[in-house]
Amino acid sequence: MHTPFHRCRPTALIATLALAGAAHANVSVVNQAIAESEVIAAQQAWCQALTGISAANDSGGQPAAKALAEKVIDTAYGYQMGAVLFKPTLTTAPQTFRTTRAGALAYFVGGDPAFPKDSGFALKGWTRCEVANAGIFIAGDSATTMGKVHLTNKKGQVTTVDKTWKFVKDDTGRLRIVVHHSSLEYAGT
Amino acid sequence: MHTPFHRCRPTALIATLALAGAAHANVSVVNQAIAESEVIAAQQAWCQALTGISAANDSGGQPAAKALAEKVIDTAYGYQMGAVLFKPTLTTAPQTFRTTRAGALAYFVGGDPAFPKDSGFALKGWTRCEVANAGIFIAGDSATTMGKVHLTNKKGQVTTVDKTWKFVKDDTGRLRIVVHHSSLEYAGT
Amino acid sequence: MHTPFHRCRPTALIATLALAGAAHANVSVVNQAIAESEVIAAQQAWCQALTGISAANDSGGQPAAKALAEKVIDTAYGYQMGAVLFKPTLTTAPQTFRTTRAGALAYFVGGDPAFPKDSGFALKGWTRCEVANAGIFIAGDSATTMGKVHLTNKKGQVTTVDKTWKFVKDDTGRLRIVVHHSSLEYAGT
Amino acid sequence: MHTPFHRCRPTALIATLALAGAAHANVSVVNQAIAESEVIAAQQAWCQALTGISAANDSGGQPAAKALAEKVIDTAYGYQMGAVLFKPTLTTAPQTFRTTRAGALAYFVGGDPAFPKDSGFALKGWTRCEVANAGIFIAGDSATTMGKVHLTNKKGQVTTVDKTWKFVKDDTGRLRIVVHHSSLEYAGT
Repeated sequence: MHTPFHRCRPTALIATLALAGAAHANVSVVNQAIAESEVIAAQQAWCQALTGISAANDSGGQPAAKALAEKVIDTAYGYQMGAVLFKPTLTTAPQTFRTTRAGALAYFVGGDPAFPKDSGFALKGWTRCEVANAGIFIAGDSATTMGKVHLTNKKGQVTTVDKTWKFVKDDTGRLRIVVHHSSLEYAGT
Repeated sequence: MHTPFHRCRPTALIATLALAGAAHANVSVVNQAIAESEVIAAQQAWCQALTGISAANDSGGQPAAKALAEKVIDTAYGYQMGAVLFKPTLTTAPQTFRTTRAGALAYFVGGDPAFPKDSGFALKGWTRCEVANAGIFIAGDSATTMGKVHLTNKKGQVTTVDKTWKFVKDDTGRLRIVVHHSSLEYAGT
Repeated sequence: MHTPFHRCRPTALIATLALAGAAHANVSVVNQAIAESEVIAAQQAWCQALTGISAANDSGGQPAAKALAEKVIDTAYGYQMGAVLFKPTLTTAPQTFRTTRAGALAYFVGGDPAFPKDSGFALKGWTRCEVANAGIFIAGDSATTMGKVHLTNKKGQVTTVDKTWKFVKDDTGRLRIVVHHSSLEYAGT
Repeated sequence: MHTPFHRCRPTALIATLALAGAAHANVSVVNQAIAESEVIAAQQAWCQALTGISAANDSGGQPAAKALAEKVIDTAYGYQMGAVLFKPTLTTAPQTFRTTRAGALAYFVGGDPAFPKDSGFALKGWTRCEVANAGIFIAGDSATTMGKVHLTNKKGQVTTVDKTWKFVKDDTGRLRIVVHHSSLEYAGT
């Protein structure tokens, strides 16, 4: 059974170190700060999830893609906190924002009559996903990134989006997305 | 002279309260939590700044607009922290992201040869700015909002953008924008 | 069954509110800020736990007290984060600090040969516990209190300690003690 | 001239780095996380301040000590935030807690009729100050330490205290003490 009180925070480093100028004492160190490397890893995990859902769709159809998407949403997003501020790339009013888990799932894999315009963004046969960060801002208990994400489909066509993610650490030390704003590049005039 | 060490945090409530079940003691309370009302006020201030810069441009020309824009950027954004993650509505690669103060200023009022495509977004004669939030997420030391912002120009034309702002409190208690992602609505297929 | 990804943060207010100056939109609001009332409640819960363990000891002996103490430590402290900075009132070197769950449990109910000086602070027949805060500091993702705590035993004798607690919110919205420094009042010269 | 809006956060690393799997882009990185090394440095600075005030008292008398103590309080503590939760080692009720700057200053150097029992802790001829941490807890926007501090006076006598400090970063990147609980070791029975 899951016991919330004894699980270990993976990122909480329990280290012993000797302090200069003092008796060599054992020091318990808990460090929950978000490292830049964790942020980069979380972005890569998102990319792998997207191409993974596309692959699951190819091999097992929408039900397989949906099952994987649910797992991704439940482990990588923060919907269990009450809401996520999610503006997907291709949504339109009045369903632009997907603050609920159901809205996110519908966006990624479609098939939800409550979101009739959603055909499933993650089903578009993405084979490659690359992140090119413009900035990373780690502040206190959150980290935010902004930059381009380049998505390549099976035909080799590349879609580039401007993307912002805000991550926080949950009690197990996992980074979770609590804000996600994605938009097509401005086409210019 | 301004001495940074004695200034008072306006939002730090120093209150005295009586505790039930204890001698009626004076309690010093400092509360730096971000209130939802502060978030709404910061959004309104951004709107007023935008229409204010447009008005300054009408009455005093670009130099007046620029002077006001500099003041707005220096009081409402967090560029002094090192960088702001700013994706304005109408920028294009390779200058999509404006992580520097100069890039933000150029976007709002133009006139900077280093950003040749910028004609000055705040000079477009905006007379009205309305925020319609989809979500507000207050977590620890930051608050993020996501929603529609409706901008009306002098001809009565309305431009709607999807906008995300992340605010943090500075040492004086002022909310500052450290992340700002704005994008035109997806046109659909 | 309890699944960690769908549980609701009790303190995350999911509210809908109408915004002035905008279409009356539904807004998802998640507010994880620590309220002063939550801090006061957590202090009261600690007091009730202490007198509760004393009562359990009276009625069921040390095993009953220990069982309750374990429950209290697992729900009110943050040992699952890796360590708690705990300096109990009556400990001495080299076991002054109880950064582990075992050290905290031994302090409260004794009976652990690894902590031979511990006779069980919570077994001292406490019948009353009152908090008189000197200050409360809520900052970002934590809240700290400092003040006097008055403990009364069955004989009516009062022990007063100076106590500091730092609380953080876990993913379920519960405040947990991550720092606890308690000391007898300075006797003067 | 130095204007607060252009100053650089010393700890905000503005770095450029090449991302694997992407065009070699310049990335603005702001990292405000509190590093363990910063915490250790802040503790050492406190120790140096204490012995420095003692030395100033020896060479220039109480006025010199007071001038230095004011500077230390204004740069190392967070009184400008509204209050500091400070329980000095040797204070007694009803002036146990020094939540105001005046109370802290009186404790360190005495001479304030409003705090008649204060003779000036920092005037006791401290020549050495050593920190032996039991634990360091870095969480989000604060860092807390707990451990022994050994103070040696001119006669070579050592006083050991149990000490808790909570630090937060101000807008310039400096760690400031917002909680400080110091107590003599429990004498035992």
